[in-house]
Amino acid sequence: MHLIDPDLIQEHNGHQLQHVARDYAHLGEQLARRGIDVDAVRQRVAALGVALPSWGVGTGGTRFARFPGPGEPRHVFDKLQDCGVIQQLARATPTVSLHIPWDQCSDWSALRETASGYGLGFDAINSNTFSDQRGQAHSYKFGSLSHSDAGTREQAVAHNVECIRIGQRLGSRALTVWVGDGSNFPGQQHLRRAFERYLESARQIYQALPDGWRMFLEHKLCEPAFYSTVIQDWGSSYLAASALGPRAQCLVDLGHHAPSVNIEMIVARLIGAGKLAGFHFNDSKYGDDDLDAGSVAPYRLFLVFNELVAAAHEGVAGFAPAYMLDQSHNVTDPIESLMGSAAQVQRSYAQALLVERDLLDAAQDANDALLASQTLKRGFETDVTPILQRLRLDAGGAIDPVAAYRASGYRARVARERPARTAGGSSGIV
Amino acid sequence: MHLIDPDLIQEHNGHQLQHVARDYAHLGEQLARRGIDVDAVRQRVAALGVALPSWGVGTGGTRFARFPGPGEPRHVFDKLQDCGVIQQLARATPTVSLHIPWDQCSDWSALRETASGYGLGFDAINSNTFSDQRGQAHSYKFGSLSHSDAGTREQAVAHNVECIRIGQRLGSRALTVWVGDGSNFPGQQHLRRAFERYLESARQIYQALPDGWRMFLEHKLCEPAFYSTVIQDWGSSYLAASALGPRAQCLVDLGHHAPSVNIEMIVARLIGAGKLAGFHFNDSKYGDDDLDAGSVAPYRLFLVFNELVAAAHEGVAGFAPAYMLDQSHNVTDPIESLMGSAAQVQRSYAQALLVERDLLDAAQDANDALLASQTLKRGFETDVTPILQRLRLDAGGAIDPVAAYRASGYRARVARERPARTAGGSSGIV
Amino acid sequence: MHLIDPDLIQEHNGHQLQHVARDYAHLGEQLARRGIDVDAVRQRVAALGVALPSWGVGTGGTRFARFPGPGEPRHVFDKLQDCGVIQQLARATPTVSLHIPWDQCSDWSALRETASGYGLGFDAINSNTFSDQRGQAHSYKFGSLSHSDAGTREQAVAHNVECIRIGQRLGSRALTVWVGDGSNFPGQQHLRRAFERYLESARQIYQALPDGWRMFLEHKLCEPAFYSTVIQDWGSSYLAASALGPRAQCLVDLGHHAPSVNIEMIVARLIGAGKLAGFHFNDSKYGDDDLDAGSVAPYRLFLVFNELVAAAHEGVAGFAPAYMLDQSHNVTDPIESLMGSAAQVQRSYAQALLVERDLLDAAQDANDALLASQTLKRGFETDVTPILQRLRLDAGGAIDPVAAYRASGYRARVARERPARTAGGSSGIV
Amino acid sequence: MHLIDPDLIQEHNGHQLQHVARDYAHLGEQLARRGIDVDAVRQRVAALGVALPSWGVGTGGTRFARFPGPGEPRHVFDKLQDCGVIQQLARATPTVSLHIPWDQCSDWSALRETASGYGLGFDAINSNTFSDQRGQAHSYKFGSLSHSDAGTREQAVAHNVECIRIGQRLGSRALTVWVGDGSNFPGQQHLRRAFERYLESARQIYQALPDGWRMFLEHKLCEPAFYSTVIQDWGSSYLAASALGPRAQCLVDLGHHAPSVNIEMIVARLIGAGKLAGFHFNDSKYGDDDLDAGSVAPYRLFLVFNELVAAAHEGVAGFAPAYMLDQSHNVTDPIESLMGSAAQVQRSYAQALLVERDLLDAAQDANDALLASQTLKRGFETDVTPILQRLRLDAGGAIDPVAAYRASGYRARVARERPARTAGGSSGIV
Repeated sequence: MHLIDPDLIQEHNGHQLQHVARDYAHLGEQLARRGIDVDAVRQRVAALGVALPSWGVGTGGTRFARFPGPGEPRHVFDKLQDCGVIQQLARATPTVSLHIPWDQCSDWSALRETASGYGLGFDAINSNTFSDQRGQAHSYKFGSLSHSDAGTREQAVAHNVECIRIGQRLGSRALTVWVGDGSNFPGQQHLRRAFERYLESARQIYQALPDGWRMFLEHKLCEPAFYSTVIQDWGSSYLAASALGPRAQCLVDLGHHAPSVNIEMIVARLIGAGKLAGFHFNDSKYGDDDLDAGSVAPYRLFLVFNELVAAAHEGVAGFAPAYMLDQSHNVTDPIESLMGSAAQVQRSYAQALLVERDLLDAAQDANDALLASQTLKRGFETDVTPILQRLRLDAGGAIDPVAAYRASGYRARVARERPARTAGGSSGIV
Repeated sequence: MHLIDPDLIQEHNGHQLQHVARDYAHLGEQLARRGIDVDAVRQRVAALGVALPSWGVGTGGTRFARFPGPGEPRHVFDKLQDCGVIQQLARATPTVSLHIPWDQCSDWSALRETASGYGLGFDAINSNTFSDQRGQAHSYKFGSLSHSDAGTREQAVAHNVECIRIGQRLGSRALTVWVGDGSNFPGQQHLRRAFERYLESARQIYQALPDGWRMFLEHKLCEPAFYSTVIQDWGSSYLAASALGPRAQCLVDLGHHAPSVNIEMIVARLIGAGKLAGFHFNDSKYGDDDLDAGSVAPYRLFLVFNELVAAAHEGVAGFAPAYMLDQSHNVTDPIESLMGSAAQVQRSYAQALLVERDLLDAAQDANDALLASQTLKRGFETDVTPILQRLRLDAGGAIDPVAAYRASGYRARVARERPARTAGGSSGIV
Repeated sequence: MHLIDPDLIQEHNGHQLQHVARDYAHLGEQLARRGIDVDAVRQRVAALGVALPSWGVGTGGTRFARFPGPGEPRHVFDKLQDCGVIQQLARATPTVSLHIPWDQCSDWSALRETASGYGLGFDAINSNTFSDQRGQAHSYKFGSLSHSDAGTREQAVAHNVECIRIGQRLGSRALTVWVGDGSNFPGQQHLRRAFERYLESARQIYQALPDGWRMFLEHKLCEPAFYSTVIQDWGSSYLAASALGPRAQCLVDLGHHAPSVNIEMIVARLIGAGKLAGFHFNDSKYGDDDLDAGSVAPYRLFLVFNELVAAAHEGVAGFAPAYMLDQSHNVTDPIESLMGSAAQVQRSYAQALLVERDLLDAAQDANDALLASQTLKRGFETDVTPILQRLRLDAGGAIDPVAAYRASGYRARVARERPARTAGGSSGIV
Repeated sequence: MHLIDPDLIQEHNGHQLQHVARDYAHLGEQLARRGIDVDAVRQRVAALGVALPSWGVGTGGTRFARFPGPGEPRHVFDKLQDCGVIQQLARATPTVSLHIPWDQCSDWSALRETASGYGLGFDAINSNTFSDQRGQAHSYKFGSLSHSDAGTREQAVAHNVECIRIGQRLGSRALTVWVGDGSNFPGQQHLRRAFERYLESARQIYQALPDGWRMFLEHKLCEPAFYSTVIQDWGSSYLAASALGPRAQCLVDLGHHAPSVNIEMIVARLIGAGKLAGFHFNDSKYGDDDLDAGSVAPYRLFLVFNELVAAAHEGVAGFAPAYMLDQSHNVTDPIESLMGSAAQVQRSYAQALLVERDLLDAAQDANDALLASQTLKRGFETDVTPILQRLRLDAGGAIDPVAAYRASGYRARVARERPARTAGGSSGIV
C-alpha cells in the first residue's frame, strides 16, 4: 500500500540519478584505494533496521509548553501511517516500537495487518509506569516497581505483563522497561530498599517473559526524579540485569548520562559483559534533550558505532543489539526529523564500517596514538552520502527523502483529516 | 483576616516555648563569645522579605507527568489565599509575584484588597512569552522577543507592556522578563541576529517602564531550547542590561547555570557591576530542577548570602536585590515546601550575618586560606534555628510552621472546596 | 613520644574548658529532647579512625606549578612525624596509608617502630604504576596493568605484589590499586581489550593477597587520561571486583565522578552489592580537585555518611568500609588541612548519627517527602562542635587543633631542620 | 633553509599526485552543483594562518606524571626548529607564539632571524605569572595581578610590560594575559576585591601597549585554582576588557568552559560586542584537557568556524580574530600532533566556507529548523581532504605531512642531538 505516490518519488529521484551514480562511482574508487568494497558496505548498511518510536511522530514539548504541529496523529493507526511514510521514503526503519497505554487499541490483529500493509513490523514494546492513567487504582506519584506500597508495585508489574501479552500478539520479542522511580529530596527514599523493591518487582516481570523474549532495562540519570533515580546509571542497570538473568539486558539511551561521560566506553563494557540490549538513539547538549540523532555531536554517534562494528567484526558471542530512535520533535515536522535521524544512524554505521580495522589494531598494539586516531577518523571524515542515496534508491525510496516528502503534500493532506490539537501550554503550574 | 485560627497557633507554640527560650539564650551566649549580638541578628533576619511565586502553590510536574495534589488552587484568588496561609504561619514572605496570563483576573482592585487582607503585597510581575494562549495571533513556537517575524515580536512586546500596566495597579515595582527563545538545532537560528532582535524588543519594553520601576532580565542555560538560548548566561544578560540602561538588571535563578559553575562568583560580578537585580531561589542537582531552596546544596545558598551580606556590610552603592522563591513542588504539599524554603533562605541569611567579617578580611588579606575558610564556615556551622523560631514567634507565626499547618487541617478543608484537577499525565507525546 | 609539648596543649585547652562544658551540656539537653544520648554519639565518633595519606603532608600542586611550603617532609620518616603531630592534636587519624615507591625505605621495622612511637599504625598500602621511576625497564606512558605489552603488565603486577609484601611487614591489611591507564584519543585504545588485559593482570595480584587481606579497586572518570580511562566509573570497578572475587572491593574517591553524579547513590549500590571497600575523602567543585573534605559541599559528605550509618544501623552483612583522606594541599599548611579535614569527617559522621532513623523510616514508607527531608536535615543542621571538642579533649588532644598547632611553633622548627624544596614551576612544557 | 629535504617531500608526494588530482576534480564537480567554486575556497583556506605555541613542541604531562619523548627541544631555538619542520611540511602555521620566561633568550635579533630563515614570524606573546621562577622576589602562590599584596602585583605588571618589550623586538602585535589567580576554598578570597585588583593591574599593562597592539584576556573556569578563578568566564573577561578599553579583547580557549556550555554562542556574543580577540584551539572531553583540536568533538570546532565565516561574510566591523593552537601532547610526537591539528583547523574552516549562506539565511528566517540544520551540516559532511592536500601541495608542503615527517627521520636525528630529559614523574606529592 502506497502512502506516497511512487511516481512522485521516481520523478523526484530522476533529477539526481546521474549525480548519485557519479558520486557513488568516485567514492567506490576512493574506497578501493583503501581496500574497501563500496558495494559490500552498502549491503551491510541496507541490512540495518532502526525501529521508530510510535510516540515520535507526534510533536513533543517541554514542561513549559508544547507547540502542536498540523496533522498530528490521533491514535495508533495514524501513528502507524506516519511511520509508513517514513519507511516508504527513507527505507531504514522497518519496525515500530509501541508504548502502552498510549497506543492501546481494541483490535491488535487489525493493527498488525495495517502495519504489514505499510511494510512495517513491531519492535520492543514499552510499558509506562511514569504517569497515571484515568481510573488507575494506585498512583505512580511516588514510584512504581520500587514503590514502598506493595499494591502499587503489583499494579506496575501487572501492567508490564500486560504489555508482554500485547507484544506477543504483535510479534514483538522484547519488553523495554523504563521507570521514572526516584526522589526529589535527600532522605525522601531509602536508596537501598528502593532498589531491592525494584528488583523484586522486575523478577516477576522477568518470569513472565515468553520464550525468545528479552527484557531491556533502561537507565537514566535524572528526570522526572531530580535528586535520585532508582536505575540511575549503567552500573545499577547492570546490577539489576545480572540479578534477573541472561535474558535481561541493559539498554543505552544516548541522552541518559551524566555530563561528559564516555558513552562508547559504557557500550564497550556492556558488550564485554554480554549485557548490551541495544539503543535509544537521539542527541543532546545539556541533558536528556531528545534532539535528533547526530544533530549536535555526530562524532559521538560514530564512536558508538565503532564499538558495535568492532564487536561484530570480532564475533563477540551473543552480540545482538536492538536499534531504536527515541526523540522529541518540538520544532520540526516529526516525519522529517525521523527520516533524517534514521539516515544519520545509517551514516554513522557506514562510516564505522569504513574503518580499516587491521591498521587500527596494529596502531593500537603499537600505542601509535596519532596513527590510531587518524585511522579511526578517516572513516568519519569520508562522505558516505552516495552510499545512503544508493541504498534508498535500490529499495524504492527517495534519494532525498525530505524533499520528496515536502513535494508529496502529505502533511497538508493529513492536516485536513486530523483535527488540530490544542496548544499544550502549561496552564500556570510549572 | 485569619486563615488559620490564631488559637491553634498559640496552642501549638505553647508546647515549645520553653525550649525555644532556652536554646535562644544559649545561642546568644555562644554568639556573645564571638562578639555578636543575637538580637541584632534576629532583627535583621526579620527584615528580610522573600516573595512567593503565585504559580508555586500549585503542584508542579515534568514533561513526563504531573501528579496533582488535593485542593489545588483554581485561580489567582485561591493562590493568594494559600500564600496568606504561608505568610501567617512562617512570617517570611510578605509579597507575592504574579505571572501573566496565568494570574489574569477581571478585578485587580479586588485582588489587591484581598492580598492586603492577608497581609500580602505584590513583588515583581512576570510576563510569559514561552507558551501560547488560546486565540493568540502569533505563536511563540520559534521565539518571542527575538522571533524572526516582526509581528510576533510586537505581540510579545505588547504583552510585556500590559504586564507593566497590571503591575502598576497592584503596586509592583519591577517586571521580570524570562524568555525561552532559542533553538534546538545548530543552524536553526542566527545567533547574533537573534540577540540583536531581542535587544530591539527589550528596548521598547524598557522605554515603557514607569518611574521607579526596574526591569529584571533572567538568563537560563537551556530548556525549553536545547541547543542554544538567546539569554543563556550572565554574560549575555549583562550585555543586554548594559545596552538597555541603568534600570535593567540581571536576575539570578540558582538553577539556570551550567554544571559546576560558581554562582556566588556571578553574584559578586553583578554586584560589582551594579547590575544585580535579585534572585529566584531554588535548588538543583542536575539542571533547572526547581527543587526546594537549600534542599540539596545548602552551603551553596549560604555562599550566595555571604556575598550579599558582604556587599551590604561594605555599603556597595545601589545594592538592592529582590528575593523570590521559584520552585516546582512535584511531590510535596506546596504550602509546606514554600514555608520550609522561606525558612531556609532566612537560615542562610542568618548564618551569613554571623560571619566575623573583620577576622575574615584579615585572613583574606594575609592569604591565610585555612583560617579564612574556617572563619566563613563557622557561620554556616552554627545552628540558627532558635533565631528563626523566635522571630516567627515574635511576629505571631508558628514555631514549627509545617506542624502547625498540618494540625490546622487547611489542606483537607480546601480540598473539599476546590475540585480535583485531572492528572496531567502526558497523553502520549513526550 | 610527644611531638608537641602536652603542657602547651593543656594550657591551650584551659581557656576553653568551661565553654566546651557548657556547650556540650546544652547540646546534650537538646538531643535528649529528640531521644538521643549525646555521650553515646560521642563514643561512636571517637571510635571512627580515618587514615592519613603519607603524600598528603607535602605541598601539592597542579600541572602548571607547585608552590612549596616551608619544612616539607624529605622522606617517609619526616612524613610519619608530621602525621604524628596531626594525630596527637586532633585524635582522629590513628593510621597512615603509604604509597610505594614514594615511601620506599630501607628499614621497614624501624619505620613500624617509629610509627608506633607516634601512636600510629598502617592502613591500606598504595601501589603506583602511573608514573615512571628512574631505571624502570618498561614505561607506563601507555598504561600499566592494561598495557598492550605483556612485559609492561608483568612489571606492574610485580610492583603490586611487592607492595603487598611491604604492607605485610607494616601490618597493613589491604592493597589499593589505582591505575591511570586509559587514552587521550578516540581510537588510541581498544576499549574492551584494555579492560580484559586489566582483569588478567589484576587476577594475578589478587592471587597474591595474603589471608585476611582485601584488594581495593579505585575508579576515576579521567585524568591523567583525558579521553578514556580503563576503570572509569563504579560500574567498571564493580565488574572487575566481581570478576576477581569476594576480597576485591570498590573504593570510592569523592572527586572521581562525572559532574552532578549522585555519589551517595553509588555508595548505596556498593553497600547493597557487598562491594564497598571504603573511601578516599576530599572535596571538589569542578573535577578531581582534591580539596579539603567538606570544604565545598559539606552536605554531600553528610549524605554519604547517612548511607554508612544506615547500613550499620541495619546490620548489613559484611559492611566494613575503610576511611582515608586523599587531598592535595596547594595553598595551606598540610598539617592544618589534614587536622581540619579529619574533624570534618567526624562532624559528618556525628551529624549522621543524630538522624532519627525511626522517624525517617516512617516518613519514607509514607512517602512524606517533606518530613523525611527535614528529619534527615535536622541531623545536619545540628552544630556538633561540642561533641568533637569533647572527644579530642578526652583523648588528650586539643580543643582547637589548628590554634594549638600554630602556638606550638612546629612548622618553624621543622623548617629549620628540613631544607627548602625548589619551586616546582613547570619548566615550560605544560 | 630546509629542515626536511625537499626531494623527500616531492618523492613522497609523487605517489599520490594522481589521486589528489582526481579527488579534487570530483569535489570541484560536486561543489559546482551547489554553486561553489572549489578554487576560491582553497584560496581562502590557504590564507588562514594558525600560530604555533612554542611550548607545544615539547611533551606535556599531568600533575601525576610526565612521560618524555625522544629529542625534546632544549630551548627556544630548538623549539623554533621544530616549528619550522611543521610549517615546511603542513604549510598552515606561519607564526609562533612565545611564552616568557620559558622562551627567554639572550639574543632576540638572532631569534628573529632564525625564525625568518624557517619562514616563521611571531604571533601574540604570552606572559607567565602562574608559576614562580628561581630568584623571584614575590611568589605567585596566592595570585599575581590580583594578589592582595601590592608588591606582588607590581612585579606581575612589570613582567607583562617586559613581555611587551620582547614582543616588540620580535614583531608581535599582541600580548596574551592568562592568570591562574583564584582560590581553593570558599572564603579564601574576597571575590569582588580580587577582581578590582586585577583590573587595576591590567590597566597598567594596557597603558603600556604600543601603538597597533592589542591585549588578549584569556578566561578559564578552573585550574590551577579549584574553587574560584578571578577571570573565570567570558562574562568576567568581557567586563574586564570593557573596563580597559577598545584594544583589550577576549580570547577564547576551547577547553576553558563549564561542561556543556555552548562555545559558539560565546563566540557569537563576543563578535557582536566587538570583543573577540581570537582563539586557543584544542579539544577536550572533561575539562581543560588540551587534546588535539577536533580530536574529540570535530562538529563543535566546525560550529565555531561557522560563526567566524558568517561574521566575515556579513562584514562585521572590526572583526579580526587571531588563531593559535594550545595543546598538551602527552602521548604523541608533538610535531605530528601540531601538523594534524593545524590541518583540522583548516578542515573546519573549509567546511564552514562550504555552507550555503543564502539557503541557511532563508531557512533561519522561515524557522525551517530541519532545513537550516541540514544546510549547515552539509558543509560539515563534505570531505574537504582534497582541498587541504592541494593547498599543501601548491605551497611546497607534503600531501600527507605525518607520513612525510616519519619518512624524514627528523625525530631520530634530533634525538641524537638533544639529550633525553628525565621522566617528570611526580616525586611523591601530588
